[in-house]
Amino acid sequence: MHQMDGTADTPELTQLYADFEAESLAPLWTQRDDLMPMSPSPKAVPYVWRWKALYDIARRSGDLVPVGRGGERRAMGLANPGLPGTAYATPTLWCAIQYLGGHETAPEHRHSQNAFRFVVEGEGVWTVVNGDPVAMRRGDLLLTPGWNYHGHHNDTDQPMAWIDGLDVPFSHYADVGFFEFGSERVTDEASPDVSRSERLWAHPGLRPLSGLQDQTSSPLAAYRWEHTDRALTEQLKLEDEGHPATVEQGHAAVRYTNPTTGGDVMPTIRCEFHRLRAGAETATRHEVGSAVWQVFEGEGTVVLGGTEHRVETGDLFAVPSWVPWSLHADTQFDLFRFTDGPIIDRLHFTRTYLPGRRNEDLA
Amino acid sequence: MHQMDGTADTPELTQLYADFEAESLAPLWTQRDDLMPMSPSPKAVPYVWRWKALYDIARRSGDLVPVGRGGERRAMGLANPGLPGTAYATPTLWCAIQYLGGHETAPEHRHSQNAFRFVVEGEGVWTVVNGDPVAMRRGDLLLTPGWNYHGHHNDTDQPMAWIDGLDVPFSHYADVGFFEFGSERVTDEASPDVSRSERLWAHPGLRPLSGLQDQTSSPLAAYRWEHTDRALTEQLKLEDEGHPATVEQGHAAVRYTNPTTGGDVMPTIRCEFHRLRAGAETATRHEVGSAVWQVFEGEGTVVLGGTEHRVETGDLFAVPSWVPWSLHADTQFDLFRFTDGPIIDRLHFTRTYLPGRRNEDLA
Amino acid sequence: MHQMDGTADTPELTQLYADFEAESLAPLWTQRDDLMPMSPSPKAVPYVWRWKALYDIARRSGDLVPVGRGGERRAMGLANPGLPGTAYATPTLWCAIQYLGGHETAPEHRHSQNAFRFVVEGEGVWTVVNGDPVAMRRGDLLLTPGWNYHGHHNDTDQPMAWIDGLDVPFSHYADVGFFEFGSERVTDEASPDVSRSERLWAHPGLRPLSGLQDQTSSPLAAYRWEHTDRALTEQLKLEDEGHPATVEQGHAAVRYTNPTTGGDVMPTIRCEFHRLRAGAETATRHEVGSAVWQVFEGEGTVVLGGTEHRVETGDLFAVPSWVPWSLHADTQFDLFRFTDGPIIDRLHFTRTYLPGRRNEDLA
Amino acid sequence: MHQMDGTADTPELTQLYADFEAESLAPLWTQRDDLMPMSPSPKAVPYVWRWKALYDIARRSGDLVPVGRGGERRAMGLANPGLPGTAYATPTLWCAIQYLGGHETAPEHRHSQNAFRFVVEGEGVWTVVNGDPVAMRRGDLLLTPGWNYHGHHNDTDQPMAWIDGLDVPFSHYADVGFFEFGSERVTDEASPDVSRSERLWAHPGLRPLSGLQDQTSSPLAAYRWEHTDRALTEQLKLEDEGHPATVEQGHAAVRYTNPTTGGDVMPTIRCEFHRLRAGAETATRHEVGSAVWQVFEGEGTVVLGGTEHRVETGDLFAVPSWVPWSLHADTQFDLFRFTDGPIIDRLHFTRTYLPGRRNEDLA
Repeated sequence: MHQMDGTADTPELTQLYADFEAESLAPLWTQRDDLMPMSPSPKAVPYVWRWKALYDIARRSGDLVPVGRGGERRAMGLANPGLPGTAYATPTLWCAIQYLGGHETAPEHRHSQNAFRFVVEGEGVWTVVNGDPVAMRRGDLLLTPGWNYHGHHNDTDQPMAWIDGLDVPFSHYADVGFFEFGSERVTDEASPDVSRSERLWAHPGLRPLSGLQDQTSSPLAAYRWEHTDRALTEQLKLEDEGHPATVEQGHAAVRYTNPTTGGDVMPTIRCEFHRLRAGAETATRHEVGSAVWQVFEGEGTVVLGGTEHRVETGDLFAVPSWVPWSLHADTQFDLFRFTDGPIIDRLHFTRTYLPGRRNEDLA
Repeated sequence: MHQMDGTADTPELTQLYADFEAESLAPLWTQRDDLMPMSPSPKAVPYVWRWKALYDIARRSGDLVPVGRGGERRAMGLANPGLPGTAYATPTLWCAIQYLGGHETAPEHRHSQNAFRFVVEGEGVWTVVNGDPVAMRRGDLLLTPGWNYHGHHNDTDQPMAWIDGLDVPFSHYADVGFFEFGSERVTDEASPDVSRSERLWAHPGLRPLSGLQDQTSSPLAAYRWEHTDRALTEQLKLEDEGHPATVEQGHAAVRYTNPTTGGDVMPTIRCEFHRLRAGAETATRHEVGSAVWQVFEGEGTVVLGGTEHRVETGDLFAVPSWVPWSLHADTQFDLFRFTDGPIIDRLHFTRTYLPGRRNEDLA
Repeated sequence: MHQMDGTADTPELTQLYADFEAESLAPLWTQRDDLMPMSPSPKAVPYVWRWKALYDIARRSGDLVPVGRGGERRAMGLANPGLPGTAYATPTLWCAIQYLGGHETAPEHRHSQNAFRFVVEGEGVWTVVNGDPVAMRRGDLLLTPGWNYHGHHNDTDQPMAWIDGLDVPFSHYADVGFFEFGSERVTDEASPDVSRSERLWAHPGLRPLSGLQDQTSSPLAAYRWEHTDRALTEQLKLEDEGHPATVEQGHAAVRYTNPTTGGDVMPTIRCEFHRLRAGAETATRHEVGSAVWQVFEGEGTVVLGGTEHRVETGDLFAVPSWVPWSLHADTQFDLFRFTDGPIIDRLHFTRTYLPGRRNEDLA
Repeated sequence: MHQMDGTADTPELTQLYADFEAESLAPLWTQRDDLMPMSPSPKAVPYVWRWKALYDIARRSGDLVPVGRGGERRAMGLANPGLPGTAYATPTLWCAIQYLGGHETAPEHRHSQNAFRFVVEGEGVWTVVNGDPVAMRRGDLLLTPGWNYHGHHNDTDQPMAWIDGLDVPFSHYADVGFFEFGSERVTDEASPDVSRSERLWAHPGLRPLSGLQDQTSSPLAAYRWEHTDRALTEQLKLEDEGHPATVEQGHAAVRYTNPTTGGDVMPTIRCEFHRLRAGAETATRHEVGSAVWQVFEGEGTVVLGGTEHRVETGDLFAVPSWVPWSLHADTQFDLFRFTDGPIIDRLHFTRTYLPGRRNEDLA
């Protein structure tokens, strides 16, 4: 008789496995350990993309490929080498560098996929979200949650580049996406410093009485660098003064939230900003779910699955699920990160493990 | 035989009603229409208190009654004339003017009752909440949610007065309150401009990673006037520009929220700030639940149950449940209000009625 | 100068306190310890009502007072001796014995107040809830949540009595109640064994696809004795077999729930059923919030605030907030209880203390 | 210059696209319409598996392949022809026929993946969930939520087959799975009719006081056919009597729920049972998210993406996202279905479209 290891060593077994295939069936026992590993074994790999190389390709694309209807965006996706044939940074997350030349416009459209932009350098582009023009400046996080019309236009004669983050891989995988084309030009070409959404919503702890209905995604279209920077600065000062404020010694961090719920900005994407003091080091963490980080400023090293990488402003790296990561700061070290945390949390798969620390029950 | 109207007109009935009392029973049928009216029929009455009179009594109390352990606070409660024998502004809400002379200290204590302070004039006092000194300035809302130690100290040689709002009547009614004395002096006599709580939490849309646990009450101890004022100013400008932002024409308003949930600042008390343009008028509203308002700046009239009252800076008025109210602004008219809305909402008794408007189903 | 104890010992103070009253103000410092006690100090008292006495008065009321429009119900409310001038069992809870003679009808009406009936003996009455006739039998819990039309009719020639529980005191206190008269006769005089609501909802763990919207109150109008009895029986058997199932040794209990949420049956009232084995004894508990119990079957003692009372079938007792209670069973001892737990929980005032046990943090 | 269609028609463009690949990047514009289609365009196809063929292969596997540690289960997964190289019924859902010979044991293990079993015929196996033996009988739904130890043993000398449903594809995709081996034998070989979990939880509307903490997954391990059948029978009778109870004319349905929340039984899997009267026909529906159905009893047709399939007892079919489906019943037609609905709902991608009907806003 045959052991439960999948080897087809008799004519009957050979026939059985052939019939499996003919009937669109497959045995569990030959693939159980691949399908259900002892701990997450992602195909995606930890990987670092260099901003200089990305920006160079973006600039050349700007010269060679016009932006327009159909392709919609001049966006170049980080393609995780462990996920060949895709342009996915991780199984769930899309991350691209988007480039818009002087006075170019990326046409309006809307889609179920949730999206944000984060700006590591430059300014001069307005993203217009449901008719509300939102300035994009260094250090800002800009949201375009699912099914909001949006386009971008560059109001200057200089190019600008930034990163886009979306749940495109998840949406493609789970077959949840809808798409509609909108206006060829943005629907409002004004270039105000502050969006209407901020004027309504960016007041700490205050909610307009005209907006008491909770919203699936944040109604705040822009999270400005001046607020993020101030929040992180204060956390480190509080730590200096002996008060609890930071994640761990020398490591300040904020999560961007939906002011109508206090939860994540969008149902599938979590956004955070981390700051390490010069010389600080994080614990090593294993986390369920995947992440993409971008260095915003400073220099340091990231250790991904045991391998150390030096990274500097603009560099991006992907951390697949359960791959241990830690950071070390040579200078003050500022990093933006986004993850699929809301997916993991809402479906109750959250687990974190810190080797050498006391860990809560891991189930 | 006896009709169901409670008149005891036979010896048997007389005996029956006597036996009711002897057995600690009472018939429903003689009191049903009082107990269960067709619509809310509060005993509390609409009432206006004048700031000048309050302040005068507060000042005299400051001269005659020292603040100290036992009495705890030099606070004078608004006593609704419809609720004799109490110092309740409405059945659920306590509102008092509190007065602290130069260099006086109100000792620390904590209690289950939720409390806030709102400042209509003056400055120079710090309220110390769980060891965090919080400056009190004109237009600020300061929170001391249930079971947080708090005391106040006046860092100047000038007196200061403000209003306290608490759920003392509800807590007393429902027998839910605990109380503990704390330090005679405040536990931190520093006088920083900004509290530690604000340094951690008062960044729009940002949440510290060290504070991801949701909290019953807002972790933000102070809502500063500059933010409130800016939010209201922007709503009216947006209205001018043709965008939806206000409650109704000329009427801007914000609700103070708990940034960990987007909901009310405390489980029993809702706080809001309203601004009317000069000349604006609100709709008339009936609302389940009671409220206390204070004019912060400007002049106008409030119509309470059909009676018009002129009110000006500092004046307070109580609006019992279902009493129709409306406001008319002579100048720009700024008002703070607090209500028992979270109690009403969480227990699903919410109803609003606007005479002459389309109303949603009233059940 | 005057100490903060309220004694008016100078002409200035006498004048000050007179002016307080004239201005509808009251000092906090003279009443702070009454208003804000160290722990809940209810005016309501622990009290036992005897079923025999209640039933006798109910029967005599049935002879002398017809049921009908206006008075609406032949219901006799438990009047807590600590709350004189009311017919309140506790500050928040109404409990009455209701009596309906053979072939009598209590007319239909609806109100915001939430109500239930619990049957300690007898049968033959149908309560008709929004047109759905619901049989009332011994041991059953029947719900009429706020704003559902309901009437009762006795389909037999024998009288029937049961208890009603409502949030009438809370609704009256907080001014939240609306009331409407309905049909003089019940709108469906059928007398089915099982209501339509049960046919849709009383299937364990199953929810009709036509009822996927969550509901404020349970859509299940009847919780039948056979289910309650079986659940309690199984808990005690599981305990016998060595498995965790009971609250404490020999003490089984169930909470009645809203199947659309798993939470309490109504937003203001919690209903439970407790069973003690003969000889069993509960721990002594202090709980925030008030309760009314009815002995359903068996004999035992209840200790309320240190005083022991023997109780038997039908006897009712009120337990005000924080009054310590414990039960001792002489025979198998079955008790129904209802509380204002949802009010206490939703407003975050919950606390429990078990003297001599380890208690979780009491804040 | 190059149009945004991806054709590399100059040396510069050819070099650019080569450099994309070298830098682990990929352009969005050449793949945007595949990645972000106008509506969901699943690779999975609608497909029907025949029970007779499945059972025949299962029986032969029973003869040839022993069940045991490593392979763990003699389970044969439905392999959607649109997802080659996998054994996935849909992108998110695993469905397998599992076969256990007389007196065989499938060893205990636990995993993060959520699982259930549904029994279309036979009996005699007990699934032991965290030490609680749960009988498996025709029509029953049995749960083994994530991280619960479970094994199966056949207490008879006859084989038994059933279907397993899991979120294995989702867990593999999102890299969230953990796995641990347990006992080689089941930890309790008893064969009670009713599990302990049912004895605690299968009482309609009742919750043990020892189980007041809400649970991520249902604590009820078995949903028995007698309850499901009765619920469906009553819905159709109520429809006959003129009362709202069914999804649409002649179509009764229940959702299996977690009694602690009223929501889905597990965080990733929704389970339902549908019954059509003979002659009834459903509307055609497009739904976001994928499903697997099994005919439990009766005969009829299912139309999947416009193609009609006759199906009978035991037959299974997969419905990928947004593929229109409808059912027509020749006899009374009973079907079990499970879907990834909780994933879709919790991440806010839910949409339904009924051609020819009024549809709510589709965004």
